[in-house]
Amino acid sequence: MTLSNSAYDELMAFQRETEALAQVAGRLGWDQETMMPRGAAGQRSEEMAAMEGVLHARRTDARIAEWLDKAVANDDVARANLRHIRRSHTRMAKVPARLAQELARVTSMAQGIWAEARANDDVAAFLPTLTEVITLRREEAACLAGGGDLYDALMDDYEPGATAATIGAMFDRMRPRLVALRERVLGAAKQPQKLEGTFPQAAQMELTRKLADAFGYDWSRGRIDLAVHPFSSGSGDDSRITTRVVESDPFNCFYSTIHEVGHSCYELGIDPAYRLTPLGGGVSMGVHESQSRIYENQMGRSRAFTGWLFDQMVATFGPLNVTDAEAFYASVNKVHSGYIRTEADEVHYNLHVMMRFDLERALIRGDLAVADLEAAWNDRFLADFGVAVDRPRNGMLQDVHWSCGLFGYFPTYTLGNVYAGCLMQALRKAVPDVDASLAKGDARPATAWLNQNLQRHGGLFEPEEVVTRACGFTPNEGPLLDYLDAKFGEIYGL
Amino acid sequence: MTLSNSAYDELMAFQRETEALAQVAGRLGWDQETMMPRGAAGQRSEEMAAMEGVLHARRTDARIAEWLDKAVANDDVARANLRHIRRSHTRMAKVPARLAQELARVTSMAQGIWAEARANDDVAAFLPTLTEVITLRREEAACLAGGGDLYDALMDDYEPGATAATIGAMFDRMRPRLVALRERVLGAAKQPQKLEGTFPQAAQMELTRKLADAFGYDWSRGRIDLAVHPFSSGSGDDSRITTRVVESDPFNCFYSTIHEVGHSCYELGIDPAYRLTPLGGGVSMGVHESQSRIYENQMGRSRAFTGWLFDQMVATFGPLNVTDAEAFYASVNKVHSGYIRTEADEVHYNLHVMMRFDLERALIRGDLAVADLEAAWNDRFLADFGVAVDRPRNGMLQDVHWSCGLFGYFPTYTLGNVYAGCLMQALRKAVPDVDASLAKGDARPATAWLNQNLQRHGGLFEPEEVVTRACGFTPNEGPLLDYLDAKFGEIYGL
Repeated sequence: MTLSNSAYDELMAFQRETEALAQVAGRLGWDQETMMPRGAAGQRSEEMAAMEGVLHARRTDARIAEWLDKAVANDDVARANLRHIRRSHTRMAKVPARLAQELARVTSMAQGIWAEARANDDVAAFLPTLTEVITLRREEAACLAGGGDLYDALMDDYEPGATAATIGAMFDRMRPRLVALRERVLGAAKQPQKLEGTFPQAAQMELTRKLADAFGYDWSRGRIDLAVHPFSSGSGDDSRITTRVVESDPFNCFYSTIHEVGHSCYELGIDPAYRLTPLGGGVSMGVHESQSRIYENQMGRSRAFTGWLFDQMVATFGPLNVTDAEAFYASVNKVHSGYIRTEADEVHYNLHVMMRFDLERALIRGDLAVADLEAAWNDRFLADFGVAVDRPRNGMLQDVHWSCGLFGYFPTYTLGNVYAGCLMQALRKAVPDVDASLAKGDARPATAWLNQNLQRHGGLFEPEEVVTRACGFTPNEGPLLDYLDAKFGEIYGL
Repeated sequence: MTLSNSAYDELMAFQRETEALAQVAGRLGWDQETMMPRGAAGQRSEEMAAMEGVLHARRTDARIAEWLDKAVANDDVARANLRHIRRSHTRMAKVPARLAQELARVTSMAQGIWAEARANDDVAAFLPTLTEVITLRREEAACLAGGGDLYDALMDDYEPGATAATIGAMFDRMRPRLVALRERVLGAAKQPQKLEGTFPQAAQMELTRKLADAFGYDWSRGRIDLAVHPFSSGSGDDSRITTRVVESDPFNCFYSTIHEVGHSCYELGIDPAYRLTPLGGGVSMGVHESQSRIYENQMGRSRAFTGWLFDQMVATFGPLNVTDAEAFYASVNKVHSGYIRTEADEVHYNLHVMMRFDLERALIRGDLAVADLEAAWNDRFLADFGVAVDRPRNGMLQDVHWSCGLFGYFPTYTLGNVYAGCLMQALRKAVPDVDASLAKGDARPATAWLNQNLQRHGGLFEPEEVVTRACGFTPNEGPLLDYLDAKFGEIYGL
């Protein structure tokens, strides 16, 4: 039996309503990307601003501090709840309202300016706004850091407990091995075939629903729709995903779907007792990404699963130019040099992230001037990718993140890949016949293990702790790098 | 130039945010009926409750009274805004919070009990809850009426300015003519053919979009989806409609669509300057219904428009069992005896409303005991429709309204029909070639007149006033009854 006290109960009741309202705001965001008539955009921005106003007022409500003073935790769940509430309340309290509002205003405006600058390949048009965003975020970081590292203070929002020093050291260990692998792979004599053809939208959507089924997506608590950018949205009993269709490239749709299914299965798999509490969502961006990536890559792009997918594609689209399962596996995993992070293969992806991490860390620390960012980007890209950036939209203007003020977010992508590598190693030990199921298009035994060992805990443990508990060892980059070397070494006959 | 003062500006800014949040709550309701995965229902009820809590807190905010005390209106728009805000604030202030919460709780629960009782044809299972709802609504009405008529006090929420005495007198004048018309029509030798066949869903939806086009629905600010019950939702720049498809009865889909297009065109047609203000929505239920009805009936079921629709249907579905436009016009307007209000034709519809008005007025006044309601319903139905009710779901359990506490709402349906009759008479004078356009599937000249003379005003004028201004005469039941006599007299060769 759980003892309780009234301050804790009142705080949790208040939080529960706040979380319900946050879910509403999230659903509004989903609607905007999927259903909203385009002429409603102006009104919608007022609706969203009103919701944000309500949420901000609740999150800075003076009673929270009083409740936190008096609340007593009588079990691990209560302790974890108070830890989360205290952390976000402390962050809120440190940042002056004036600064928070200014950040909201500038980043909201900056996204439009960035989008136009990207469309026009016009770096100069974006730099003044980017400077403003960075200045404000540095100011915010100074409020939060209390004399500590500015970048750490920002990253803490996305990956509590992570530090730039540790991440940076890990990235520095990973980078040479990845660069070496990419060079060997691109230089290999044996190069996989590329899938070619036209794959009609309706058939892609039909097959993409089967893929979601294969990974155990719960349709009674989710749905899939088309959007410009694939995303997953919502917690608790309503977590929806979107995908996109390019008729010449069905993998775009299929692997976007599997990726978002990973995010949504995490949300839907959290202990129902935590619904609408601080424990009821994924615990960090890195852990979230570990789920989307292990679904998408370690499982979705495995030989076993692509064997099943090959049969499905032939059944759906008729004969392919790639004529057997082995060649299909290679074509799914074809490594290609490219400018764009979101289109990168498993070998290149983390190199994209690492350069962004180094650049944004330097920007926040004041070691890199905004005016020098483009040159720094292009130099680093040439060094790591062996290719010169041809235009800004393929270079420093490609990602939305910085215009949104998301500094400290990029490293969580690679952290997710590292965690996914560790989890897959542990999963293979615990579920030895995982490949046999994947070969039948059934990832559910694997996802059941992930649910039992990681997903169901939601925010109960700290990010690194929950991964460590699931794996049985401290997460490190070894398993991911070994997996990549082995997989691509074999595909490319190295 | 509009003079202004700070109390008015502050009040309006506050209202604007409240209205934006109300739009969000409305969109959540739309999502629930169209998109929400069914397993999300439990969580959704918490999300809705949280939104309602926010809205209620804002609507009862103590600052509103202070602003209203100090606010000065310098033009007609400001005067109308203050009139609306003052009216709803006065209503809010008169009802104790305890009673408002109890009503919310009981009616929310009552809808589930009603639905189950209806499914089981079990009147006894519904009566205790209905008694509770009526007791609370009477208590609320007593707070609002200040010694005046209880039913008037409730109706004022849906149709400001209307009184049961005036409405009742009008209904008493209408009823004998409608009963007489129904008897002559059903006894006529010439009976229209019934449309028969199977009309596939996809083709119905394609044609229903053309119907929305015909009436000028603005797709850039709306959309159409399937739902169990057709409805229109949202104001300003986002007003969406739903329809339903019965493959054996395409008129169900088509006329539901035209009806909801009428509601949405009203909302979308309001002066953009009024968006997110008290003037930015339809002014009353009756005026709203006048727009949905004039679109659906006076225009949509006219000989001219059905002539065009006949050609469309043949083009879409191939040859019909009804082989010419004249027989098709008659089949669209076929009068049939039936139990269900929402399926009633133009001749029967108002008779359904009138009996509900008399019964609910007696319930609220305390002249009819809940225990006697079923008998009273069945007696009256036999008298007006010449048929005995066969089971409760076809009788007093058919409508959701009373379980929601919606007493005083029903008469606005017939008031809408009466207004539609008046408006059509005026419209025919102002736009003499309206039939020529309708015959080409183009209702836009008609809806342009409605927009110019009524829709664009939103809440600027009181309900009866805006109809009077549009028609050029005081609205009365004459035009509707003359229209029905003429139309059905001709179709049935009376």
